[in-house]
Amino acid sequence: MINDKVIKLFSEKNLVFIATIMKDGSPQLSPVWANYDDGFILVNTAEGRIKHKNILRDPRVAVSVVSKNNSLDMTTIRGTVVEIISDAEYHHADKLTQQYMGREHYPFKRDDEKELF
Amino acid sequence: MINDKVIKLFSEKNLVFIATIMKDGSPQLSPVWANYDDGFILVNTAEGRIKHKNILRDPRVAVSVVSKNNSLDMTTIRGTVVEIISDAEYHHADKLTQQYMGREHYPFKRDDEKELF
Repeated sequence: MINDKVIKLFSEKNLVFIATIMKDGSPQLSPVWANYDDGFILVNTAEGRIKHKNILRDPRVAVSVVSKNNSLDMTTIRGTVVEIISDAEYHHADKLTQQYMGREHYPFKRDDEKELF
Repeated sequence: MINDKVIKLFSEKNLVFIATIMKDGSPQLSPVWANYDDGFILVNTAEGRIKHKNILRDPRVAVSVVSKNNSLDMTTIRGTVVEIISDAEYHHADKLTQQYMGREHYPFKRDDEKELF
């Protein structure tokens, strides 16, 4: 399912949208930075955000991405979050900053925020 | 909740993402064309698509849109589909074609497809 086209979409500056399930069963949706790494889609978020709470309760998600250059070039993947990893050192956030902003380090760090991916 | 900023986001060429709920309670997600009209967000889809079936069963949705020009300019709305309207004459599809492609008429008409919004 994850072919070269999909890997390319997740390697460019394209915003990714992730849908999760609220406690009441309704959908929640947000734009995120994400990338592809070795068979997995890695989505970055801060601890305590709604989508993090939702995923802890129900790990089923859908992610959708459309190419900035050609809106017919798109993919949507429905799947399950298999792992939540702390990114306390901002390694993943920095990697995504390079992908999306062409800058070395994530510029929005906050001392009270814990990154996850 | 729908202020001028939101109306602007839904009046530009920005793709809109809509999340619905599958029969098994998991999220479904797809990019769509949409616009704002008189207090409502109008989303166009073809009859029989997964999201149409999902909405008939559970009308709760979330829509998210990010500005093409500034990715910090975004909004997400959680709500309920209040009406499904046939667009057999492609009036809404044509309107969205003007918004998104700057062309007069929807170019992807198929005789076997019924448009809804």
